[in-house]
Amino acid sequence: MHSEDQALPRDVDDQLDQLRRAIDAIDHDMVALLKERQEQVEKVLQLKKAHGLSVYHPAREENLISEKRRIGRAVGLDADYLEDIFRRILRQSRVEQTAQLARRGIRPGATVLVIGGCGAMGRYLVKWFGEAGYRMRCLDCEDWPQAGALCRDVDLAILSVPIDSTPEVARRLGPHLPEKCVLADVTSVKQAPLEAMLACHPGPVIGLHPLFGPATTSMDKQVIVATPGREPAACQWLLDQFADWGAIVLKTRATDHDDIMGIVQALRHFATFIFGRFLYEKRIRMDEALEYSSPIYRLEFGMVGRLFAQDAGLYSEIIFASPERRALLKEYLDCAQSNLEMIAKADKDAFEKHFRRIAEWFDPFSRQALRESTYLIDKLIERF
Amino acid sequence: MHSEDQALPRDVDDQLDQLRRAIDAIDHDMVALLKERQEQVEKVLQLKKAHGLSVYHPAREENLISEKRRIGRAVGLDADYLEDIFRRILRQSRVEQTAQLARRGIRPGATVLVIGGCGAMGRYLVKWFGEAGYRMRCLDCEDWPQAGALCRDVDLAILSVPIDSTPEVARRLGPHLPEKCVLADVTSVKQAPLEAMLACHPGPVIGLHPLFGPATTSMDKQVIVATPGREPAACQWLLDQFADWGAIVLKTRATDHDDIMGIVQALRHFATFIFGRFLYEKRIRMDEALEYSSPIYRLEFGMVGRLFAQDAGLYSEIIFASPERRALLKEYLDCAQSNLEMIAKADKDAFEKHFRRIAEWFDPFSRQALRESTYLIDKLIERF
Repeated sequence: MHSEDQALPRDVDDQLDQLRRAIDAIDHDMVALLKERQEQVEKVLQLKKAHGLSVYHPAREENLISEKRRIGRAVGLDADYLEDIFRRILRQSRVEQTAQLARRGIRPGATVLVIGGCGAMGRYLVKWFGEAGYRMRCLDCEDWPQAGALCRDVDLAILSVPIDSTPEVARRLGPHLPEKCVLADVTSVKQAPLEAMLACHPGPVIGLHPLFGPATTSMDKQVIVATPGREPAACQWLLDQFADWGAIVLKTRATDHDDIMGIVQALRHFATFIFGRFLYEKRIRMDEALEYSSPIYRLEFGMVGRLFAQDAGLYSEIIFASPERRALLKEYLDCAQSNLEMIAKADKDAFEKHFRRIAEWFDPFSRQALRESTYLIDKLIERF
Repeated sequence: MHSEDQALPRDVDDQLDQLRRAIDAIDHDMVALLKERQEQVEKVLQLKKAHGLSVYHPAREENLISEKRRIGRAVGLDADYLEDIFRRILRQSRVEQTAQLARRGIRPGATVLVIGGCGAMGRYLVKWFGEAGYRMRCLDCEDWPQAGALCRDVDLAILSVPIDSTPEVARRLGPHLPEKCVLADVTSVKQAPLEAMLACHPGPVIGLHPLFGPATTSMDKQVIVATPGREPAACQWLLDQFADWGAIVLKTRATDHDDIMGIVQALRHFATFIFGRFLYEKRIRMDEALEYSSPIYRLEFGMVGRLFAQDAGLYSEIIFASPERRALLKEYLDCAQSNLEMIAKADKDAFEKHFRRIAEWFDPFSRQALRESTYLIDKLIERF
């Protein structure tokens, strides 16, 4: 094949130009349609809001997707292709709907105090509540002399301080809070903070753990765990507010939360840390490794690299949050060590036997994971 | 908010219906445009092929995307949204173009013998070469008595047998091959197979390692490593063939390949295996863990689950491929173990010190990984 710089017969050049102009015109129409669609969806949303109808219908979405797949097959387009395009279109209207809802809070005008409002998560909360029409106040280290004034007539106080200081900060804050005020925290362990909040404030108390960081631009499908403390009915509006922003609210007991998060957060992050540390100790040339990485390996290394682009303090808090967590991590290292003999003896049979037993136990999650990650790899190929 | 089942004023119902019909009509037009675009792209492709022009232009793609972002901003559509839509459209035309190229091989009519053609990877090769117009033959265990006839006038012989048997199979095959025949293998280690092939066949020899499995439907942006053995010019058409199918061909020395793959494949898979094994030993309730998982954790668990949906034998071959690999894995376990004291002492300072040192070393890969994985998480949210 020769390069396109070489001279081409004049008419071929013309034909190519003409085809490219036709494609550009199609693209132009497509953008116009997307814009028109957005406007129609906006009208539906206004109508629904005016009559108090819920805006998101998973079932209607799935019907629409099936219908598009069917049409795609009928006209000779790849069904997966059409599904991808329309999933993206539907997602956009979901994001815009939640953005709209965010603009009108559930209790606009209510006063919200964020303790630790200058931290990354604190600023994030101030932004979301502020944009939804709440009156915002912050209390940071230097503001304790004014604590009484800052707490006056507050409807909601959210503790957004490091895990270790949450109980102590709650104890300092409690005496200043109005009795009807909702007291909440956003730390990633729940037992100790919840107990401290209950002990220092006689009114409504709820523990929250947003499973997402301040880098998240949309709360769409992000999980927030809620561990009720006292007067759940008085706290409900706060959960509704997060749900309106698009988050999935899961209620559970503080002890159950802490157990599960030991696995979901602490263990997973620790395993990733260990892997990153080994790459560092061996001074592996990452650029070289990536060059030889097909998309799936690129994604695997990406999950490791991602950790180290984030805050060391946050991860050490999550990993070292409690003696139970540390015991779990020690167990993990012991379990890892138990593979040594198999490696030393090059015992393929033992490996395969373990592998199959684990695979059987993982099923059907493993097949679902294969499907989901294959889909993502396609997305990675599309973009990078 | 009340449910949609409740009675609504008649006119609201009518208005909603009307808006929904308008949206359906827009979607209908969109599908028609996508179909029309596909037809125009097809004409460009035919014209380019007729005049020997290369079909894929990364620079033209990037220009098109920038232009769409600009237009999006101008008409009041989210630029990222338009970029996503058009990336997906461009990808589809890339995939269709490579599918077309696949239909016309670089040396159609040439005879290709796949040794181990009944295995998963063997069948995959037979399918791709066969569809590209090559004359296909297979040689499996039971066919050795006919080896002479099967090898007659063969232009390319590809060994697609387990790593351990590749050298032995090469020795059996060699004497039957025509001197001009290209001999290649597709095993995931390269030193021993390449040496065995060079020793048994005096003609052109090349080692190949496709970094993708038979489950991959498109080779678009998949990596294939080539380790030249003898007469590289005579082997070039084979590499060109994989490139035409969309794969990225990387040439390197067998020793370098094996070193890098120890990290990229063996270590990464082993670390994932260890993690999965621990979840199993602790009988972690995966459904519960997933319920509490925000998209990023879902992706992390997905990468673990994915491993166990695949072939135990393949992974044991990769992990136990050589004594060097096993030494590497032992080193990894030792390194993991070195974190024990930090955990036992709850030494946050040590953790953060290590973390920051590793983070510095990882940079800028880590920031890029954060960007890429954040993009993927958005895709995961969109779909599941």
